[in-house]
Parts: sequence; structure tokens; C-alpha cells
Amino acid sequence: MTSIWANSEMQGSVQLIDQRYLPHQIVVETISTLDEMAKAIEEMHVRGAPLIGVSAAWGIAIAAFHAQEGEWRMQLEQGLERLARTRPTAVNLFWALDRQRNILAGAQSLEGAKKSLWNEAIQIQKDDVAICHRIGNSGLVLLQDIFAEKRAKDQNAVVNILTHCNAGWLACVDYGTATAPMYLAHQAGIPIHVWVDETRPRNQGAKLTAWELGQHGIKHTLIPDNAGGHLMQHGMVDIVITGADRVTANGDAANKIGTYLKALAAKDNGVPFYIAMPESTIDWTLSDGVRGIPIETRSEHEVRYMDGLDCNGLPHEILICPEGTQAVNYGFDVTPARLISGFITEQGLCEASRNGLANLFGRES
Amino acid sequence: MTSIWANSEMQGSVQLIDQRYLPHQIVVETISTLDEMAKAIEEMHVRGAPLIGVSAAWGIAIAAFHAQEGEWRMQLEQGLERLARTRPTAVNLFWALDRQRNILAGAQSLEGAKKSLWNEAIQIQKDDVAICHRIGNSGLVLLQDIFAEKRAKDQNAVVNILTHCNAGWLACVDYGTATAPMYLAHQAGIPIHVWVDETRPRNQGAKLTAWELGQHGIKHTLIPDNAGGHLMQHGMVDIVITGADRVTANGDAANKIGTYLKALAAKDNGVPFYIAMPESTIDWTLSDGVRGIPIETRSEHEVRYMDGLDCNGLPHEILICPEGTQAVNYGFDVTPARLISGFITEQGLCEASRNGLANLFGRES
Repeated sequence: MTSIWANSEMQGSVQLIDQRYLPHQIVVETISTLDEMAKAIEEMHVRGAPLIGVSAAWGIAIAAFHAQEGEWRMQLEQGLERLARTRPTAVNLFWALDRQRNILAGAQSLEGAKKSLWNEAIQIQKDDVAICHRIGNSGLVLLQDIFAEKRAKDQNAVVNILTHCNAGWLACVDYGTATAPMYLAHQAGIPIHVWVDETRPRNQGAKLTAWELGQHGIKHTLIPDNAGGHLMQHGMVDIVITGADRVTANGDAANKIGTYLKALAAKDNGVPFYIAMPESTIDWTLSDGVRGIPIETRSEHEVRYMDGLDCNGLPHEILICPEGTQAVNYGFDVTPARLISGFITEQGLCEASRNGLANLFGRES
Repeated sequence: MTSIWANSEMQGSVQLIDQRYLPHQIVVETISTLDEMAKAIEEMHVRGAPLIGVSAAWGIAIAAFHAQEGEWRMQLEQGLERLARTRPTAVNLFWALDRQRNILAGAQSLEGAKKSLWNEAIQIQKDDVAICHRIGNSGLVLLQDIFAEKRAKDQNAVVNILTHCNAGWLACVDYGTATAPMYLAHQAGIPIHVWVDETRPRNQGAKLTAWELGQHGIKHTLIPDNAGGHLMQHGMVDIVITGADRVTANGDAANKIGTYLKALAAKDNGVPFYIAMPESTIDWTLSDGVRGIPIETRSEHEVRYMDGLDCNGLPHEILICPEGTQAVNYGFDVTPARLISGFITEQGLCEASRNGLANLFGRES
């Protein structure tokens, strides 16, 4: 199973898992217009930086497929702008749209644009799978090292990994970013156990990561976001691995709100804190993440209400605070590079610094 | 309104707010046996370190009231032990039981024990109110100073306070510990705004603190526990004030799980982090809080399920993770003294250190 796929039954459309219904229901949604895709991104039917990028690439390909002769180029350019407005933080969105914008610019005819935008969406999706697999291999080395060290002292050693939010295959196409090393370690027979932050307010950990790991038979324990510091103080976490929505050229990383608190606790307890991400998550134009990365503010409804299954097994939403209570809902926070042990990328590992990133990706630093 | 009171309609019983139903319902429970009180503490009808102490004091007074001649002394001693087993972390419980144990030891007859244990419970309760009021005055100075400094730069300055869990009057008898300075500042006309951590898994912030502050007309905003770091990075928090369940002689503080993460963020951003508590919260026998303070592990049900009001305004509990997901639920964590700016106590402010505490409370350090 992957998170999104071209619809073999209806040309010019894709299908995706509407993740709002997980883990209790697997709902497959068919997307056949750009507006449907924009809404799917905005309302988080799909989420996760890499998947947002892939979905946006499909959105414009779908628009091209259905475009008519005439104003098609202007319409598609407007479509790119519409998709760029869906969510502000994940830079993969803009990266994928830039790839499609280049394809569009090079297209001589509508027929050519249709074909080349569709093929590019397929390619972006394929690339994402390959990149996540390579991220997995890069991170596997870290887990092997921790296991070897623990194993030398204890025959029954297990590698305890803490993760925040969902940077699993549901956030990508397959493998995931933060989860890719876990899946590969599990396949390689390394005993791992994952502490899953529930990740309020939307509970992507409780809903998505717990479900993903459960499906793959990986041992895991759900914890409130408040618990990680205590676990690290007591030596119960060997490594923290999360994804990222945007990483600046100097190595500051925006990720789901609360990531920064875990990075602080990791630093305070000497626990390695790694961020797994593809190059497309890097925003080479920014240096200061705390000041520069736009942080999405979402509806306070997500804080005041929770959804889940009631005692009859039916989906239910409940109010968890007094009626008139106001709330605020920042989607992301920024972890400064100084708190990050390193990045796990498709090109290998690197230090969280301007030099580290520039050297790894062959850029001028 | 207070959190607990002697029942004027039935001798030998007390009434308390069963806090499990707040904020949606105010349920008053009558407690007329020691077992009922033990259960009320264990199942968190009442919670908060000071209130746990007061409730336990009432529990043994109620047992004495109904005791029969004969084995009464042994029964009451067993009653003290039963109450001591209700919850492990808050040291106020043991402090209040010690006060009652001394009273019991001094009693010559059952009639004498009845009267003196009852009077001591009344006294412990009265003391708690007076102590919390004094804590409020100690902390008021801090808020006045912050306000004066901000006001000098901005006529519309507001003091932004972040708090975790509920250390309000619901956690005590009246005023609260962490909230006492807020109530007194509000009365004194200082404009304050409180960031209320929802405090998963039991949501004491969303349910109790938001309700309390709302009742008193104090401006506040509910936030996920994940948000505090981001707020502090952006200068949106002037001071953090929380309560504590146990403070060691060297100033380490156990409080609701997640407090440590907020203390780390405060330190990283130069935000003052204070703990408000009465002397009865200090465990003079312990030095190393992380190793020495017993941390309660509660049911994983509290993590896997959430309760609130459904769309018909009826209380409802929902499952927020996959069916078979395992969870773990540590009730508290320990914030090392090095992260605490100071303590706000009934004797004034002091540094979070062995010397600071010993000097303030007239002990040998």
C-alpha cells in the first residue's frame, strides 16, 4: 500500500488515502480536479512534507489532463499559484511546483504539456519512493551502531527510538523519512521499539504512526507528548528521529509543533537527535529558521475538539474544554541547528550546519 | 466556592467537587467513610498536591468520627496506612497524614481522638487557604516587576504567564499555588494573560485551569502542550509558573508530566521559570529528584481515550488510537533545580537550591 497512486480505472485522476479517517477507517478518495487536490492538501486528507509535494505535482498534472485549448497556459499557471497557497510551511510543496513550472515553461503545446506534466508527476512520485529508501539506508547505519553498542553489554538489547508526529510512509509515498530507518532495521532483524508521541492537537502519532508501525509489526508504545523528557532522563530513549517540513541552509528545522521541546530534552540528556529528510525539504534561501520560516496557524477547533471512536465504534468528535474557551494552534515550531545531532538524507548523514548541508549536497556554503 | 468543605448537613462527613466532571458539570460528592475518601484520591475525584493532603486529613478525621470503642486506635493507624497508599508522588499527602498521626498518638481516648482529628483537619484546611494567599502575595511581586518593566516600554503591556496542569484553587482549597499570584495580580489591576497547557493525558489544563480562570474573568488561551517552546522562542511568554507535587531539599521539583520540557524551553529562551508551592511540598529527606522521587504510573486508558462533550452536549469517551495500541502513562516528571529560577512560597521567594530552601524555611542546609 502507498499513500497516493495514479487511478488505473479513470484516466486523468489519482487516488489517495484520506488520512483524516485513519486509523479507524481506510477511506480512498478519487481526485480528478485541481481544486479537489488543493482542498485535500488544505484540509489534510494528505499531509506530511514529501506527500504534500507529490500531491501538488499530481494536482497540476490533473489540471493539464482536463485543460482545453485556448487559455490553458494561463490557467495552469494560476493552478500552480492556487496549489502554492494551500499550506505555507513545507517547502517540498514549492519544490515540486517548481519542477512542474519548469516542465510547463518548456511545453510547446497543450498536448505536450499534458504528457510531460503527467510524466513528471509520476517521476516525482517514483523519486520520492527511491529517496525515502535511500534515507532508510543512511539511518540504518545509526541504528546498527546503537544496537552493536548496546548488544555488547546486554544480549537482550533493544534499540529505543522516539519519534514525533508522522514522518512515515503516510507522510510520503512509501517508507517514510523518519520511519524508513526503522523499517529497514526491522527488516534487518535489529530489535527496535518506538516511543510514539501522540502529537497533539491532531494526533498524527496516535492515529497514523501507531497504525503504520502496527501494520508492519514493529513494537511501539503510545505516549503523551509530555512524556519524552521523563523517558530520556531515565535512559529509555537511545535516539530521537523526526521528519521536517523545512530545513534552512544553516540547518534549522521546522517540524510539527513540539519537536523543539524534544530536541531540548535530547540535548539535556545526551540523546542523539536526528532529522530525516530529502534534499527537497531544504530551503537554501533561508538562514534563520526561527525568524524566517513561516509557521502555519490552523483552526482553534483542532485544539478544542478531539475525534475518535465512541463506545459503539462510531466516529465521534468531543469538546475537551469549557464552551467559550479560546485556543491557538500553531502547526510547527523550529528546532535550531545547535540542538540537532545530524540529518539523515538520501545522500547520507551530515552535520546540522551550513557546511554540513552544503558539502553533502554539493553546494557552495 | 472551595474545593472541599465540612458537610453542614451531615456530621462526620465532608463534601467535595468531583473534579472528573469539570468543566461540563459541577458534581458535589459527599464523603462519609475513609474508603470513599481513599477512592476519591486514587481515582482523582480530587487531585493536586495540597488538596490531596487536605483530603487525606479529612479521611482519617471521618474514620475517627465513626469509630467504635475497642480496636479504634489500631483501625485508625491502618486507616492512615490505607490513605498513604492512595498516590505515591505528592509529598503533601504524607505531610498531612503525619500531622494526623501525631494527633492520634497524643489522643488518650476515642472521644478525644474524634475531636482532635476533626479539629486538625479543619486546621490543615484553614492553613492551606492562608498559605496559598501568602504564596499569592510572594508571587505578586514578580508579576508587578515584569509589568513595570514592560509598561515602561509599552502603555498596553500585558503580562503573559504560561502554566502547566492545574495548580489552581481546585488543586488546593482556595487561591491555588501557581494561580494565587495570578488572582492577586488580576485583583490588583495588573493586566495578565495566561497560556494554559492542556496537559495531556488527563487535560487538567483544558478542563480545570481554563474553567477556573474563566470563572474569575482572567484572560487566557488554551494551547497544546507542544506549543510552549514556540511561544517562548517568539517572546510571547514573560514567565512560567507551575505548582509541584514534591520538591527535594536541593530544589528538584516533581510536577505533572511535561513540566520538565517547559523548564528546558524557558531556560533556552531566558524566560523565568518559577514553581509555587507551600513548605509541605518539600521532602527534606531527598536530594536527587530524578532518582529519588517515586513517579506514579497510571492506567494506559488515560492515554488511549479522551473524554468530553459530544455534539448533543452529553459526556462521551472516545478512543484516539488504533484498537490494540499499547500506551504508557507516567504521571509526573522531575525538573532539576538548575532549570528553576526560584520558588514562590508562603515565606517569600527563594533560589532553587539547598541553601535557598534551607535559609527560607530556617533549616540546616
